[in-house]
Amino acid sequence: MAEFIRDAWYLAAWSDEVPREGWLARRLLDRPWLLLRDSEGVAAMVEDRCPHRFVPLSRGQREGDTIICGYHGLGFDFSGACVRNAFGSPPPGAQIAAPPVIERHGGLWFWPGVRDKADPALIPDFDFIDRAGPVGRSVYVMSVNYELIADNLLDLSHAEFLHTQSFGTNGSLFSHGMQTVETAEDGAVWNKWDIRDAVPPGWAVPMLPEGGRIDQYLHIRWHAPSALALFIGISRAGTEGHEMVIPPMANPHILTPETETSTHYFFTHGPTAEDEAMARRVFLEEDEPMIAAQAAAMRGTDFWEERPLILPSDRAAILARRRLMQLRKAEAG
Amino acid sequence: MAEFIRDAWYLAAWSDEVPREGWLARRLLDRPWLLLRDSEGVAAMVEDRCPHRFVPLSRGQREGDTIICGYHGLGFDFSGACVRNAFGSPPPGAQIAAPPVIERHGGLWFWPGVRDKADPALIPDFDFIDRAGPVGRSVYVMSVNYELIADNLLDLSHAEFLHTQSFGTNGSLFSHGMQTVETAEDGAVWNKWDIRDAVPPGWAVPMLPEGGRIDQYLHIRWHAPSALALFIGISRAGTEGHEMVIPPMANPHILTPETETSTHYFFTHGPTAEDEAMARRVFLEEDEPMIAAQAAAMRGTDFWEERPLILPSDRAAILARRRLMQLRKAEAG
Amino acid sequence: MAEFIRDAWYLAAWSDEVPREGWLARRLLDRPWLLLRDSEGVAAMVEDRCPHRFVPLSRGQREGDTIICGYHGLGFDFSGACVRNAFGSPPPGAQIAAPPVIERHGGLWFWPGVRDKADPALIPDFDFIDRAGPVGRSVYVMSVNYELIADNLLDLSHAEFLHTQSFGTNGSLFSHGMQTVETAEDGAVWNKWDIRDAVPPGWAVPMLPEGGRIDQYLHIRWHAPSALALFIGISRAGTEGHEMVIPPMANPHILTPETETSTHYFFTHGPTAEDEAMARRVFLEEDEPMIAAQAAAMRGTDFWEERPLILPSDRAAILARRRLMQLRKAEAG
Repeated sequence: MAEFIRDAWYLAAWSDEVPREGWLARRLLDRPWLLLRDSEGVAAMVEDRCPHRFVPLSRGQREGDTIICGYHGLGFDFSGACVRNAFGSPPPGAQIAAPPVIERHGGLWFWPGVRDKADPALIPDFDFIDRAGPVGRSVYVMSVNYELIADNLLDLSHAEFLHTQSFGTNGSLFSHGMQTVETAEDGAVWNKWDIRDAVPPGWAVPMLPEGGRIDQYLHIRWHAPSALALFIGISRAGTEGHEMVIPPMANPHILTPETETSTHYFFTHGPTAEDEAMARRVFLEEDEPMIAAQAAAMRGTDFWEERPLILPSDRAAILARRRLMQLRKAEAG
Repeated sequence: MAEFIRDAWYLAAWSDEVPREGWLARRLLDRPWLLLRDSEGVAAMVEDRCPHRFVPLSRGQREGDTIICGYHGLGFDFSGACVRNAFGSPPPGAQIAAPPVIERHGGLWFWPGVRDKADPALIPDFDFIDRAGPVGRSVYVMSVNYELIADNLLDLSHAEFLHTQSFGTNGSLFSHGMQTVETAEDGAVWNKWDIRDAVPPGWAVPMLPEGGRIDQYLHIRWHAPSALALFIGISRAGTEGHEMVIPPMANPHILTPETETSTHYFFTHGPTAEDEAMARRVFLEEDEPMIAAQAAAMRGTDFWEERPLILPSDRAAILARRRLMQLRKAEAG
Repeated sequence: MAEFIRDAWYLAAWSDEVPREGWLARRLLDRPWLLLRDSEGVAAMVEDRCPHRFVPLSRGQREGDTIICGYHGLGFDFSGACVRNAFGSPPPGAQIAAPPVIERHGGLWFWPGVRDKADPALIPDFDFIDRAGPVGRSVYVMSVNYELIADNLLDLSHAEFLHTQSFGTNGSLFSHGMQTVETAEDGAVWNKWDIRDAVPPGWAVPMLPEGGRIDQYLHIRWHAPSALALFIGISRAGTEGHEMVIPPMANPHILTPETETSTHYFFTHGPTAEDEAMARRVFLEEDEPMIAAQAAAMRGTDFWEERPLILPSDRAAILARRRLMQLRKAEAG
């Protein structure tokens, strides 16, 4: 499997997952972490592993802003420094990892790589989350490598086959769609599908005059290593997007590796339980079984060694994979 | 583990397992396959793996004689050629594997190796299946390497210890038996046990005059890589086999590797559910646990590296193993 | 993982685990064994693996003092010699391993290494087991490497954090305790904690005059590779141990590797079911989950490669680990 990119911001948790007392224990980039807040509510993150005997600190307890190991009682503050030893003075220099954390766009972002490079301006733009009205924030662990999920999202043509039940575009994607792939100045890769003058999906028919047709866009944006945003809009055909049939949608699909073969999938949805159930159904019952079948078929072999057949619709996914390879190469030396 | 022999015919399925619509998906020689029939009923076999993103085509659907991938919609015909792409023309040269298939002896035989060598005359002779009266055809996946099952069958002396309940020969195999091992002109290895003038098994006593004794033969034939046939006959002692106590039996024990550690075991049995239950009991409750215990004890080590103690009764099994080694060597270089 | 030490006595079973008929089948040092007694009751031990096809002999049966393989009927005596073959004479020289076994201290000790070095005088001293009154002897398989369990026992400071419920010393270990680490002439490593003039644990208060204080010792002794003995005593403070509050305790904690990642943990306890339940609770619900979490965090990496933080309380554990490294080196060449 490929190395993780280290010099990058990753979403570690939604803000409301991290409590004021105790902690959230979560594996990220195949290391164990504690996400917590100090007495002021400021977010922090430390390794969930005692340097003495390697046990998870999450088997211990918190005393104020000190984390006490449950095995032999060493204590650590939120900067990762060992500050307590019941049997003498804390061993000088003893330390656990404590990467930079920034709370933004409703979540905690951390930088696992070189501390000096952790520029907050590099956090990808998810302002639309802040601007959204009432919204549900969820996270789900998908049991596949994050690059396979990004491939899935960057090639939306799969919606015509895998999501025919949940939001099929009735074939209009290939009959009336046009794909544009772009790399933005900030390195983001865009895959834009624009559909012109198509028959509307069944649910939209009542919102249109009889026989009314639609324009539709499905634009997805990818930021290295794996933060994606999906933008969807349906408007009356020929109105240049000025007469929307429903309000335009923007949704984060932010992927943070849990391990090499599992991924935290952060997403948002409408505020009701029904909205969440719909999102989970698409991800868990449609996408994940297919991607898991792909991963099982690959058996841990590198993607390129499997010599995939390349289609024009793969362009965005391939640009993203190339960008990751460049970043890995740069980090390796 | 040793490489699979590739230039050989393997039984892929019994004929009645392969439907006229849809398909049978089955792993053979550690690759995924679809077994299907075209609109004329002619059998075919293609790889169950889309060359685009490697997902099983069996997650998709069949439209006439085209197989449509459920992920991005590529379509393949039964020769393995890509014949459909919803987003443009089919990528030239795109192809999945489609090995030669022949329907014979009640089953579908395929040749995974070099196509030009796939001579139908090389299919081992199981004519007795065609000639048999009403018969049940079954297949069971045994969770061990096929060579260990062949060892088991090629050394029938185990019947005296492992199958004492189901068809024990009451020790007559070693008290009155003689073993002959032969290699036939076509490369088949025969292990023949002939018992002369022995006490009959309990169930046969009523079929004989009081105090009557029997002759019995247990002959097994092995064809590389792993197609075996077992022939059993019981006759009144001293009649040179002319006065059979029950009709002579001929049974296929055809082994096709599923993976390196599991095997499709094709067998036949009498037409009733009771007949099938009896066969399954012998294979599943007597043979398989013992062979699985052997495999567990070997832990993936090569058979010869375990330095087995060699007994005279092993001769046929060792000839078969040697033949496989020759074939592997020939295929490797 | 590190190699097992071979030239050493290991406890294979408590005496009452090994029956007069049949056998006890147990994996020790990652090999399968049969423990049995001959018609005189004398203990023996042979490999649980037929040299012909490697199956466990424990799938066969015992006929008097002969072990008959359940696959093809080879028979072995308790010296490991093949003494029976139904199809001819026993293959000359055929043999399974049969290491030296000595019954002592209520258990069977075996020597897996070079037979000539198996000096009974090297069995570690557990005379206190023989001298103890009615006592329960138990064994439990803990799913971690034996060295991690020895680390746990050799650093009793964990009692203050992990065993606060079951026998917490209320912090007196670090407030009033002194640690002494010694290597005895016979190579045993001792870690001695001596507590002077401390507040008694709650359950001991009624046994003392009002406001009475205690002295307490917790001494643990380790013999390579992994036989430990724990000695605990509580006396009235200042009596130099002459006025014990409860009778002094001596308990074996004898560890025999089952595999590299699991260990037979032999222990004793009071004669009641309640006594056993208490011991199991401490080992299974307190110690094992923590040690298993440690093992999971290490993921099979060597202990030293994880670069553990070293504390003064680790001294005994480190001496023991060093001794094992010396022994391994000596055995390797």
